Amino acid sequence: MATAPPPAPCTAEDEEPPSMAPHVPREHREQHGKDAPPGFIPPMAAEDVAAVEAVLGYDFADKSLVELALTHGSFYYPYRPGDTYERLEYLGDGVLTCLMSREVFRTYRTLPPGPLTRLRAANVDTEKLARVAVLRGLHRFLRHKAPQLEGQIHVFIEEMCKYPVHSNGLLDPPKVLSDIVESLIGAIYFDSNFDQEEVWRVFRNLADPLISLETLGKHPVSELFEFCQKTRRGVKIMKDEWDKNLKVEVLIDGELVGSATYAQKKEIAQNRAAKAALDKLKETLGQTESELAPAHVSEPFDELDIPGTLNTNAS
Amino acid sequence: MATAPPPAPCTAEDEEPPSMAPHVPREHREQHGKDAPPGFIPPMAAEDVAAVEAVLGYDFADKSLVELALTHGSFYYPYRPGDTYERLEYLGDGVLTCLMSREVFRTYRTLPPGPLTRLRAANVDTEKLARVAVLRGLHRFLRHKAPQLEGQIHVFIEEMCKYPVHSNGLLDPPKVLSDIVESLIGAIYFDSNFDQEEVWRVFRNLADPLISLETLGKHPVSELFEFCQKTRRGVKIMKDEWDKNLKVEVLIDGELVGSATYAQKKEIAQNRAAKAALDKLKETLGQTESELAPAHVSEPFDELDIPGTLNTNAS
Repeated sequence: MATAPPPAPCTAEDEEPPSMAPHVPREHREQHGKDAPPGFIPPMAAEDVAAVEAVLGYDFADKSLVELALTHGSFYYPYRPGDTYERLEYLGDGVLTCLMSREVFRTYRTLPPGPLTRLRAANVDTEKLARVAVLRGLHRFLRHKAPQLEGQIHVFIEEMCKYPVHSNGLLDPPKVLSDIVESLIGAIYFDSNFDQEEVWRVFRNLADPLISLETLGKHPVSELFEFCQKTRRGVKIMKDEWDKNLKVEVLIDGELVGSATYAQKKEIAQNRAAKAALDKLKETLGQTESELAPAHVSEPFDELDIPGTLNTNAS
Repeated sequence: MATAPPPAPCTAEDEEPPSMAPHVPREHREQHGKDAPPGFIPPMAAEDVAAVEAVLGYDFADKSLVELALTHGSFYYPYRPGDTYERLEYLGDGVLTCLMSREVFRTYRTLPPGPLTRLRAANVDTEKLARVAVLRGLHRFLRHKAPQLEGQIHVFIEEMCKYPVHSNGLLDPPKVLSDIVESLIGAIYFDSNFDQEEVWRVFRNLADPLISLETLGKHPVSELFEFCQKTRRGVKIMKDEWDKNLKVEVLIDGELVGSATYAQKKEIAQNRAAKAALDKLKETLGQTESELAPAHVSEPFDELDIPGTLNTNAS
């Protein structure tokens, strides 16, 4: 069985980002001839199925599961719920939760549940799985007919290259990308007669490197509050409720230090504003990030919980 | 291996509720003599470990896991994080999520993810697992030193007897009860070298009968809104923000029809008020519950999502 190929380059400025060349599924290339009946939707080509299997390093007994796991709800009109990846995604989500729980439980023998949960989440959240989809090229096999998805995926790939590692809330990955990783994992779980070791072998390769306690970054809002607490600064995160662009501003001791806009999601705007403020503060202080926010194993973890509300004062 | 005993009686008025006689662990009975050094905390007695194993129908290779899975954070002073059930609870939560996902995925071959998720949740939520703990008598082996827990468990057992089946949000079970079911499940997963089939065998027996699509009840708030929509009534759920007792009132076409107070949790008060209103409406209409709210397989399920806010108008 083939193993997963190495991640696409996305770590150095002089390297190329993952290919955005549209993948034309073989079915479209070969079967759009005059012979096909009107409305005929050909199955995924055997060559593409094999390519996906090679990426996964898993040989499906039931090859039709590959097609199912990669078929978005928009692919058929009218909607055919039984022919989309949704049920497999649900199953994959369940088994990944279990296997990542086990992994961090086994790896960190004395770590309390709080950080265990954060480690688990970071390794199976939307951003991590969307990164996996792109780095392994799985997004190229997505079957859909929702034109806006291509643009969203394109933007994500560009942004992803700015953040070679998990951004902790600065990116807004299209859910469809993490969906197809979960659905392919669900498909393997089902196809292997619910063999969790087989699922783990595949996921472990796909998701390599896993996020460890050492590489687990901090959430920018938590880090900002923590930093201001340590250095006795007053911090206020302000949002203009009337602004369509969802502008969020960070005031430190009453002075505007960072801001960001992200019209699609308030939370992303807030996280980016916090990150901008942190970068500014660190630059001003002439301190390096590593000095200010080391990820020590012995740190208390509860403080990393994200404040749920805006306009909070932590001085 | 012993199998799980039948559930304690809690279904008929003339039967006794589950025993509330305090279980004095054998260690306390036998080892509180003058020989014990000051501050000495004896391990769980072998007899009690065996009793728990009999309830679970599982024979632990490492018997110390039983004690660990039943030891609440309050048991040791100062707090000894490595000697409490928290990590096992985390692991058990993960494996139960996976196994219930698989169970409903396999049982309902065409059901969409929404109802699959609701079915999974209902079978592993705090109320379901707390019921399992009480019905199997596992709560009697809980090791803790938090006096308030006894009272909370006592209240829950009394309330539980009023609702022979899952109440869908009318009860407020102490989390400790569901915790110990998860931690015992986590302990079995760990002890069996992560054998999911062994875990499923134990849980399937413990949790019998599982909640099926046919027995899955509706959330009272959803049911109320649905009922009022069907019968073209205006419904308003009102909460007095200044009332310490968290009184919630339900107005139907401007008239007070149901109310409830529950100072500990706003959500429970809201659910109980909705249930009271529904009961009143049905009584008034002379219709039976089964006529009004049958759980048909073919029903749309999205409407069962709970409105997140109070003071909502659905007329």
